[in-house]
Amino acid sequence: MVARSLRHADVTLIDRTNHHVFQPLLYQVATAALSPGDIAWPLRTLFRSQRNVRVMMDDVVSVDRTTRMVSLRNSLRIAFDILIVAPGSRHAYFGHDEWETAAPGLKTMTDAVQLREKMLLAFEDAERRRTSTGVRSQLTFVIVGGGPTGVELAGALAELGRKAMGPDFPSLRLEDLSIMLVEAGPRILPGFDAELSAKASAALTRMGVMIKLRNPVSAVHADGVRVGQEWIPSTNVIWAAGNRASPLLSTLSAPQDSFGRIKVRPDLTIPDDPWIFVIGDAAHCVDHGGKPLPGVAPVAMQQGRYVADLIDHDVPSEQRSPFVYKDRGMLATIGRAQAVAQFGPIRASGLFAWLLWCIVHIFFLISFRNRLRVMSEWVWYYLTFKPGAKLIFERPATARSIRSTDHGHE
Amino acid sequence: MVARSLRHADVTLIDRTNHHVFQPLLYQVATAALSPGDIAWPLRTLFRSQRNVRVMMDDVVSVDRTTRMVSLRNSLRIAFDILIVAPGSRHAYFGHDEWETAAPGLKTMTDAVQLREKMLLAFEDAERRRTSTGVRSQLTFVIVGGGPTGVELAGALAELGRKAMGPDFPSLRLEDLSIMLVEAGPRILPGFDAELSAKASAALTRMGVMIKLRNPVSAVHADGVRVGQEWIPSTNVIWAAGNRASPLLSTLSAPQDSFGRIKVRPDLTIPDDPWIFVIGDAAHCVDHGGKPLPGVAPVAMQQGRYVADLIDHDVPSEQRSPFVYKDRGMLATIGRAQAVAQFGPIRASGLFAWLLWCIVHIFFLISFRNRLRVMSEWVWYYLTFKPGAKLIFERPATARSIRSTDHGHE
Repeated sequence: MVARSLRHADVTLIDRTNHHVFQPLLYQVATAALSPGDIAWPLRTLFRSQRNVRVMMDDVVSVDRTTRMVSLRNSLRIAFDILIVAPGSRHAYFGHDEWETAAPGLKTMTDAVQLREKMLLAFEDAERRRTSTGVRSQLTFVIVGGGPTGVELAGALAELGRKAMGPDFPSLRLEDLSIMLVEAGPRILPGFDAELSAKASAALTRMGVMIKLRNPVSAVHADGVRVGQEWIPSTNVIWAAGNRASPLLSTLSAPQDSFGRIKVRPDLTIPDDPWIFVIGDAAHCVDHGGKPLPGVAPVAMQQGRYVADLIDHDVPSEQRSPFVYKDRGMLATIGRAQAVAQFGPIRASGLFAWLLWCIVHIFFLISFRNRLRVMSEWVWYYLTFKPGAKLIFERPATARSIRSTDHGHE
Repeated sequence: MVARSLRHADVTLIDRTNHHVFQPLLYQVATAALSPGDIAWPLRTLFRSQRNVRVMMDDVVSVDRTTRMVSLRNSLRIAFDILIVAPGSRHAYFGHDEWETAAPGLKTMTDAVQLREKMLLAFEDAERRRTSTGVRSQLTFVIVGGGPTGVELAGALAELGRKAMGPDFPSLRLEDLSIMLVEAGPRILPGFDAELSAKASAALTRMGVMIKLRNPVSAVHADGVRVGQEWIPSTNVIWAAGNRASPLLSTLSAPQDSFGRIKVRPDLTIPDDPWIFVIGDAAHCVDHGGKPLPGVAPVAMQQGRYVADLIDHDVPSEQRSPFVYKDRGMLATIGRAQAVAQFGPIRASGLFAWLLWCIVHIFFLISFRNRLRVMSEWVWYYLTFKPGAKLIFERPATARSIRSTDHGHE
C-alpha cells in the first residue's frame, strides 16, 4: 500500500514471496472455494506501470540503523534513506513453538495450499478405507482461536464438509465429520458486540460446529490436542490464535511490547529516527484512549497511505500530525448468506451483513480482473456447490515449509 | 474417458491424483500462462452425477491375473471382473534415469508447477543480482526433444521471456536469456511433413529460439548438459524426449515392446485374457500397416470409447471388430498466432492453424466452465501480456516430488 501510494520517491520493495496476497480471503483458498491465483497478484505485474518502484524477492534479515543498511538473505546489503518496516506477523504459540508443526496457522499462501491438501487428503483417505471406523481423528478438525479467522474457517469447513464434499465421498458418514472451534475466552468474536457473538455462535452451531469456550489449549501433538482437561484425537488442528511480530523487529533496537511489536510514535516512526517507519501488524500504535490498534488490514492500509503522504511531501518530524485510524467497522462471515457486521452504532447479521461482506471484500481486491474472477467463482460455487479449486498436488510428506521468519516490506 | 462412457457397469476408478489433467495444455501452466485449476478437474466432481462410478485416490502397485485382484499402495486389494489399464507414461531417459532430477519432464501437474516455480525463481534470482554476469546458466533454458511438447514449450518460454517477463525485470538484459531446443534427429516435429517442420523451425528461430539438430544429449548434470560435443551451462534443462511405459505393466505378464508397452491384440486386450484391456500410452497397438499408433490424447480417447462400448454391450471376444484409429490430424502451436496443422492432405500454418488449435483445445477441455475460463484467460493474456499465474509458493529446495511409478486407471 505504501509503495502503491508513493508516486515520487525511488522505492525498493522487498518481499520474501513474489506476490501480494489478499489475506482476508486466505481461508477460502484453504477450504478449496477459491484458487490461489484468485486472491494473489504477482508484485512485478502490480508495479509494472510504476517505474519508480523496484521489486526484489528476498528475505530481510536485519536492519542496521547506524550504517543505514538492510541485510538480505540472498543478496548484498541495501542502503536506505527512508525505511518502512511492514513484515506482518506469524501466529503466537504462547511459548510452545513446537506446536506449529502439528497445528499450522494460516498467514501465507503456502499455509493455505498446504492446509487445503491436508484436508482433501484426509477425506480421500477416509473414503479409501470405505468406512469411518478408525478414521475419526482424521475427520476431526480443531480450530484454535475464536476470532474472525477461526470463525470464518470453521464456517467454511462446515460448508465444504457437509454440503460440497458430502456427495463426493459416498462412503463417508457425515456424522463422523466433526468441526470444533476452541476459544480460551468466554465468547467467540471478542472484538464484536456480545449480541453479535451470540448470533455467530448460534449460526455456527446450526451448521454443526461444536464451540468450546473458556478452554485454553494445553498440549498439541501430531495425533490430537488437549483442550482444558479433554484430549481430542485429531490430525487436523489449525491455529488461529494470537500474533507474534517478526523477529526482524528486534534488530531495530527500539522499544517493543510483549508481542514483539515496535512501540511507535504518533507518526509511526521509531524513537529518535523520523525516517524509519513501522506499520501494520508489526506496530504497536495506540489510539486516543491509549488502546493499541488491532492487527487488521484496514489499519495497515490506512497507515500505509499516511506514511506515503509524509514521504511524498517530505514533512519534517515536528510538523507531522499524528496518525488517526478511521474505524469503518468490522465484518466476519460465517457461511452462505451468514455474517455479522458492526459499524459504529449499527449492528447487522444474516443475509444483509453477508452481502455487505461480499461487496467490501470484492471492492478491496486489488485488481479489477481479480474482482471479476472472484465474483464469478463465488456465484458459480453458490449455484453449484462445485468448488473448482480442489486439486491435490503430489508432494512428499516432508515438504512442509519450515520458516523462522516471515517478512517483507510492503 | 472409459469411465465417462461406461453407463451401465459398476466402475471403480483408481488414480494416484485426485484430478484429471488436460495434458496438452500442461506446458501453459509450466510457463505461467494458465493456472493449475484452469486445466484440471477433480475426479469426484467430474463423476458426481454418475452414480455407477466410484473414485479412489490410490496407487496401483500390481495386477494379479490369477486371483483377479489389483494391489494398492494405501488400501486393501480390490477384486475385478474387467480391468482397464491406462497408467500413461513417463519420459524415457534412455538408460540414464539419474538425469531426471536435473532434467525433469512435463507429464503431471506437479511437474508443471515445479517447472513454473523453478523458472520464475531463476528470473527473480537473476534480477536480484542486478546484473546478468554469472547468471548466464540460470537464464539458459535447454529443452531436450523436438516433438510437439518440446516445440510448444520452447515457443511459450520464448514468449514469456521476451515479451511478458521483460518489462517485469528491468535489470535483466534480454540478450542473456537463451532458449535452446535440442533434437537428436534431423528435424523438429518429425511426425509432421518436412515443409511444416521447416515453417515451425523458422517461426521459432524468429522468436529467438536456438535449434540444435542431429545432436543427442550425452550427459546431464545439475549445472548443465552435454549436447553432442558441446557443454551448455544451464540450470534449466527440461526433458521432452521419448516415453517409457509404467512399471505396473510388467506385472501383467504379457508381451511388452522395447518401451515397456503391452503388445495388445486388435481388441486392445492382452493375449488369452479377453477382459483385461490396456489403452493409451501403455498400449502398443498397431494400425493397418503394422505401425504402432502414436502416444497422443486422441488415440487414448478413441480407445477408451471403443473399450467402453465392448463392455457396455458385453461383446464376446470372438465377435469383436478390431479397434481402428481415426486420425483427425495433428496440430502444434508455436506461439501467438503461430501454429502448424496437418489433416490428411491438408497443411496449414500461421494464424489459421493457430485459431484451429485454439478451437480444438477449448473444445476438448472437459467441462464447459473450464472452456470459458481458459478462453477468457487467453484473451486476457493476449491483450495484456499479464499472466495471472505467476505465483511462487514457498517450498524448501528438497521438495521435488520423487516418483517411481505414475499410474492410475482411466
